[in-house]
Amino acid sequence: MIEPDLELAQALFNELYAIGYDGIGVTRDTYGPGEQRAHDLIRLSGTELGLEARIDAALNLYLTLPGLERSLPAVLTGSHLDSVPRGGNYDGAAGVIAGMSVLASWIKCGRRPKRDVTVISIRAEESVWFPVSYIGSKSALGLLPADALEAVRFDTGKTLGKHMEEQGGFPETLVNGAPAVSIGAVCAFIELHIEQGSVLIESRQAIGIVTGICGSLRYRSATITGQYAHSGATPRTHRHDAVVAFAELVHELQNTWQVLEADGHELTLTFGQVNTDSKQSDFSKVAGKVVFCIDIRSRDVDTLDLMNDYVQRAVADLSAKHGVNFNLGEKIRSQPASMDPALRHGLTVCAKNRDLKFHAMPSGAGHDAAMFAYTGIPTAMIFIPNANGSHNPDEQMEMDDFSNGARVLSDILWQISNQ
Amino acid sequence: MIEPDLELAQALFNELYAIGYDGIGVTRDTYGPGEQRAHDLIRLSGTELGLEARIDAALNLYLTLPGLERSLPAVLTGSHLDSVPRGGNYDGAAGVIAGMSVLASWIKCGRRPKRDVTVISIRAEESVWFPVSYIGSKSALGLLPADALEAVRFDTGKTLGKHMEEQGGFPETLVNGAPAVSIGAVCAFIELHIEQGSVLIESRQAIGIVTGICGSLRYRSATITGQYAHSGATPRTHRHDAVVAFAELVHELQNTWQVLEADGHELTLTFGQVNTDSKQSDFSKVAGKVVFCIDIRSRDVDTLDLMNDYVQRAVADLSAKHGVNFNLGEKIRSQPASMDPALRHGLTVCAKNRDLKFHAMPSGAGHDAAMFAYTGIPTAMIFIPNANGSHNPDEQMEMDDFSNGARVLSDILWQISNQ
Repeated sequence: MIEPDLELAQALFNELYAIGYDGIGVTRDTYGPGEQRAHDLIRLSGTELGLEARIDAALNLYLTLPGLERSLPAVLTGSHLDSVPRGGNYDGAAGVIAGMSVLASWIKCGRRPKRDVTVISIRAEESVWFPVSYIGSKSALGLLPADALEAVRFDTGKTLGKHMEEQGGFPETLVNGAPAVSIGAVCAFIELHIEQGSVLIESRQAIGIVTGICGSLRYRSATITGQYAHSGATPRTHRHDAVVAFAELVHELQNTWQVLEADGHELTLTFGQVNTDSKQSDFSKVAGKVVFCIDIRSRDVDTLDLMNDYVQRAVADLSAKHGVNFNLGEKIRSQPASMDPALRHGLTVCAKNRDLKFHAMPSGAGHDAAMFAYTGIPTAMIFIPNANGSHNPDEQMEMDDFSNGARVLSDILWQISNQ
Repeated sequence: MIEPDLELAQALFNELYAIGYDGIGVTRDTYGPGEQRAHDLIRLSGTELGLEARIDAALNLYLTLPGLERSLPAVLTGSHLDSVPRGGNYDGAAGVIAGMSVLASWIKCGRRPKRDVTVISIRAEESVWFPVSYIGSKSALGLLPADALEAVRFDTGKTLGKHMEEQGGFPETLVNGAPAVSIGAVCAFIELHIEQGSVLIESRQAIGIVTGICGSLRYRSATITGQYAHSGATPRTHRHDAVVAFAELVHELQNTWQVLEADGHELTLTFGQVNTDSKQSDFSKVAGKVVFCIDIRSRDVDTLDLMNDYVQRAVADLSAKHGVNFNLGEKIRSQPASMDPALRHGLTVCAKNRDLKFHAMPSGAGHDAAMFAYTGIPTAMIFIPNANGSHNPDEQMEMDDFSNGARVLSDILWQISNQ
């Protein structure tokens, strides 16, 4: 069995960190200089290895080791290179670097697969920058709605189309041209990714084999409007307190979550942001306005809808109880996705052959793999253990764990690419 | 019975609004241009009436109608001229303008009291600007702690001492000199103020006669530190969610408030501001940090302490339950104050003589009158009806209600100043 090129992997991680460090964490901003530097680095590394480089209209990067029978549908692996603001070094990048380390080791020992094997560096997976999910993979697969190009990046105020153009992309082609990845031309997509929770660490498993990817139902900008009033002179029963209404909403829905879990539903519920108005609020005023967000995730569409029903009911009750107005704003959904059973089985065989303990688990987080699965491409995911969660500067993947994941990736890619 | 000069009052309200309007509400910023313009206007009006003008080291303005026996302790009336950001036109200003309208009417008809009667325009009552309560009245009475001059205004970042100096004040004198208002030289202080709740409007009373002023216990900058984590990949039981801990705190203490009220306690409890971190929070992250404030008010010190005990207990429970850290920050207290029984009785007699329905009521809001009472000066307050609360652009006092209050003020001042 062949060993992935860990020296290359470590060098790429180091270099990515150096060019992405923002003083607190790592920032590789979607369609901005941070993401671009990462793409430049991986492209350079790929061409040094002799891989064929291609960039599509949305600036996704494809590095291909040509197979012996190039007309056969290719095997795709990879992940995204962007990060959240002040995130960590491994979320996304680990999947790209794993693919690079596998192909480097194959090249080093002269291995040549039957099918093309391509490492894809996907753009714009972190939807914190633009309020659109999976921009890069949707673009590659011809799934990006045209109006998404008008979405505005939260920090620059510029549209997605403008950002793409500035980095050298062709938004026009994206809308009118053929997709870069045509379904018939790809026989499988395998994404390796760090686990963003702590299941593997706590259960001491070497790798995770993903069963399915959660869909989401989100209200990214919800508002409660109450009435500002003097904190000392307004009796409890005369208040229309937006903060209290928010607190009651969180309290109630936390209880609902617990009840649904006890009933066997798998989901998460998160209120990641809440803010009173910076100009009109005051410590001596009852709050007249609160802006917040809700993020619900589940592998089961019915569970998403059920939790959303509870949200709607709580909102109606609390509006009446507190005399406040809830405006949940736009509801944004992403569909859950199932991983391919044959590929999942293949991964368990590979893990066993490498004497690795593995754990079958859902992915609570969304991944580009969901888009590939959605189009009907057989898709699978490998999770590797990671401490301290992701989307923060403290995410911590050990190279030993990474190499276990890369070994399994190497084995499954070799297997599929020779079928 | 003499009628206050309502024409002057209306003209002063109009002018104050014109120079204080900020595009949304009225802003008369403490020791800034907004408050200064209001002081300039009232001083000009006073000197036009022939009143003696004096300004103390903290820039409080005293406009005096000399009495026949000037060596007798004087009678003081008035209120503050500053406002909260985007507040209303009447909070504070109504008390100053009522005093002006009374003295103007006395002068017009040649009335001359035995004692000096002084209208005081107090500085810096709204503690939203500097984290110090009653700066103006404390300064006048020699009660301002020297370190208060180092307090920083939230929007300018400059110290109170610097702000005073820039407006022409003498912070040095304030700390080392004699107080501008010596206790023996004042026989009474009467403050007229709009009601900041809706008790008078709802009970259709013409004026309120204040029984006592609430003290407060505040945590103006409390923090909950949890742990940022991926919203989709972090199970419920693995979270250290600062937003959920905050919501549970609000929920629990709202219940406590209700129970205490049922037990006969009078108090208010307000969480006027709550904010997740603008840089690190995200809709797809469990929140690792929340900053918020707590404002507790009561006429009863024991009730303040009791509620504070419940806060401490809830914080301890929730820290353990959610694995988060609460740092409540500095605890800031102001003492409750009782109004003088003889003056309160005098006000009821004056109201009856004017055929006005009156209501004896506590003040949930703090007022400069609390400081005068605290030093032992016999003090009373008149509330006038006001719709839509205060500290907001919609506060609405009718001139008919104002004139009722000013009539009672005129009568009580005439009575005391001739004793």
